[in-house]
Amino acid sequence: MDFRARQRRVWKRRIGAGTAELPVEALLITHLPDVRYLSGFTGSSGVLVVIDGKATLYTDGRYTVQAKAEAVGTKVVIVTKSAVLTACEALVTAGVTRCGFDAVQTTVASLEAMQKEVPAKLRKKMFEPVGSIVARLREVKDEDEIEIVRRAALVGCGLFDKALGYIRAGMTEVAVAAEMEHAARLAGAERMSFDTIVASGERSALPHGHASLAKLPKRGFCTLDFGVVIDGYCSDMTRTVHIGRALEDELRVYDSVLEAQEAAVAAIRPRVSVGEVDEAARSVLRRAGLDQYFTHSTGHGVGLEIHEQPRLAANQRQLLERGMVVTIEPGVYIPGRFGVRIEDMVLVTATGGEVLTPSVKAWTQL
Amino acid sequence: MDFRARQRRVWKRRIGAGTAELPVEALLITHLPDVRYLSGFTGSSGVLVVIDGKATLYTDGRYTVQAKAEAVGTKVVIVTKSAVLTACEALVTAGVTRCGFDAVQTTVASLEAMQKEVPAKLRKKMFEPVGSIVARLREVKDEDEIEIVRRAALVGCGLFDKALGYIRAGMTEVAVAAEMEHAARLAGAERMSFDTIVASGERSALPHGHASLAKLPKRGFCTLDFGVVIDGYCSDMTRTVHIGRALEDELRVYDSVLEAQEAAVAAIRPRVSVGEVDEAARSVLRRAGLDQYFTHSTGHGVGLEIHEQPRLAANQRQLLERGMVVTIEPGVYIPGRFGVRIEDMVLVTATGGEVLTPSVKAWTQL
Repeated sequence: MDFRARQRRVWKRRIGAGTAELPVEALLITHLPDVRYLSGFTGSSGVLVVIDGKATLYTDGRYTVQAKAEAVGTKVVIVTKSAVLTACEALVTAGVTRCGFDAVQTTVASLEAMQKEVPAKLRKKMFEPVGSIVARLREVKDEDEIEIVRRAALVGCGLFDKALGYIRAGMTEVAVAAEMEHAARLAGAERMSFDTIVASGERSALPHGHASLAKLPKRGFCTLDFGVVIDGYCSDMTRTVHIGRALEDELRVYDSVLEAQEAAVAAIRPRVSVGEVDEAARSVLRRAGLDQYFTHSTGHGVGLEIHEQPRLAANQRQLLERGMVVTIEPGVYIPGRFGVRIEDMVLVTATGGEVLTPSVKAWTQL
Repeated sequence: MDFRARQRRVWKRRIGAGTAELPVEALLITHLPDVRYLSGFTGSSGVLVVIDGKATLYTDGRYTVQAKAEAVGTKVVIVTKSAVLTACEALVTAGVTRCGFDAVQTTVASLEAMQKEVPAKLRKKMFEPVGSIVARLREVKDEDEIEIVRRAALVGCGLFDKALGYIRAGMTEVAVAAEMEHAARLAGAERMSFDTIVASGERSALPHGHASLAKLPKRGFCTLDFGVVIDGYCSDMTRTVHIGRALEDELRVYDSVLEAQEAAVAAIRPRVSVGEVDEAARSVLRRAGLDQYFTHSTGHGVGLEIHEQPRLAANQRQLLERGMVVTIEPGVYIPGRFGVRIEDMVLVTATGGEVLTPSVKAWTQL
């Protein structure tokens, strides 16, 4: 990873990002995934100050060894009090009078504490919201990131492919999750990227049905939505399989969701709006009379965080760009009966979309 | 859980919590663990408005079924746009002109969006920081919570006790974590409460050494720091075991850390300050000439979140109260050589502290 290049890029992005005419003299980065993206530091506490395109990391004594090993090319300062307040002191010492920050990642209490750390005459003007410029940079993945995301996605596929071998009626949802998570660890996952969803039978109608002690039914759907973290990057995929003989409307709904999902994947290419991609999925379900059961958006960016920009939702106008990695995950949830969701991770290429999660999507009956 | 009683309690706590003379007319609760504490709702998106001691939950269509099942006794509103902005609209409709919020849990961007949702003349005065009153309530666990925390702590102990049977030289740290996490799932854990730390050999000197592909050494320490989530509540414990024959200074450091840990546990009782508890551990290590290697605080509250108030750190004056559940986790980390940490969860009782994690702490050689 070329962290120094990222530091220079974020520094350029500050121009025009604030409300004032002149660009800010420094950036204060407090959101940990942003800190990691810009410096490589993976600890649970630390902030970055970027001045003239060069970052300094402020973290505490627990991370003395780790920070120096990870944040190569970034100056490291070990603090004895709050990292963010020490960073503010350093800003004042450096003569900075206007520092950009991300209002989406800074609490009201934190901003107040930051302001108290600077001389009274600067207080109200020192910190200027400059938008989520690191999050925006992170939307488009560089080559190093794409390579890791590819690996993460394939590890995820491996878990599903293996699960097809042991999923059976009578097993608890939690036992399925336990097997998948165990395999994930042995395949190199640092952790799961979110709480594993194993939602079977009626529970498949819960879009976020975390694995419970419910037993997989003799006949019915089982939705698996899960992801791993590999070298900090998240995977995210969903498959819905059927146990036992299917009812006609189960088949019909499955076909519609699959058609919607494939339509949205096919709509992906640079300079298409995220709203168009959402509509590609939604219109299929509308024609099938199922759109009222599709109660969420079509997808989201994924990377160092499981939910990143862009958000692929109805009427959103943001344009896709080459290098973005997004999920495509339409679903239909019929309360009290069943639900189906199918989700891939898709890389936006120069000419279209490349599915990173090639596990089987055709109707699968176990 | 008596959620209605909690809603009434938080409503009382608003008195005197703001800066104005009159108490606020409503509370807006946005932090998800606070929402869960007050309503039982476990979804990943939702906010509460409390007026006259009664809460209304605002969440989206993904949670229609779940919200009604979980948030018993709380009115549920399913929103079609942002939950927090819909809640703000409802505040205005209800004639509220002053609403309390938690500045520690609200971002600058979110507050700005909230303010835009109310009429211009109210804008600057509508939302008033009233401190972290739910977090404060949550410091002292009620009987229902203590019963769950006890279970969570014992599940954690079970993982460690079992690990003693399979930890051996040559096994990777990740394989140890995988076994523990698998056992956790089968024992009913919803997830681990944080990334499992398995730090062996030189890596034991990293206070936050997440399980890596490093192999457990033939001779050296292995620190296991891990926790489970049971019914939403976190456990947290650390044990450090030794593989193979020990060096004299390893034994000496272990003894000192154990003595420090037990001294801090013994110092726990209602109305003792958290700073005194920290000092009980720190002074043992100071006498042993090891305090410069104890680079973090002694412990923290634990409950619905892995890190809660109170923080048990040097010179902190907060007093312990009956019903608090805290960790006691001194450690010594000698860079490039080894580290030792021992951690229990302790319930503050009427007369002292009850250790909830009774796994063996005596020197354990495998």
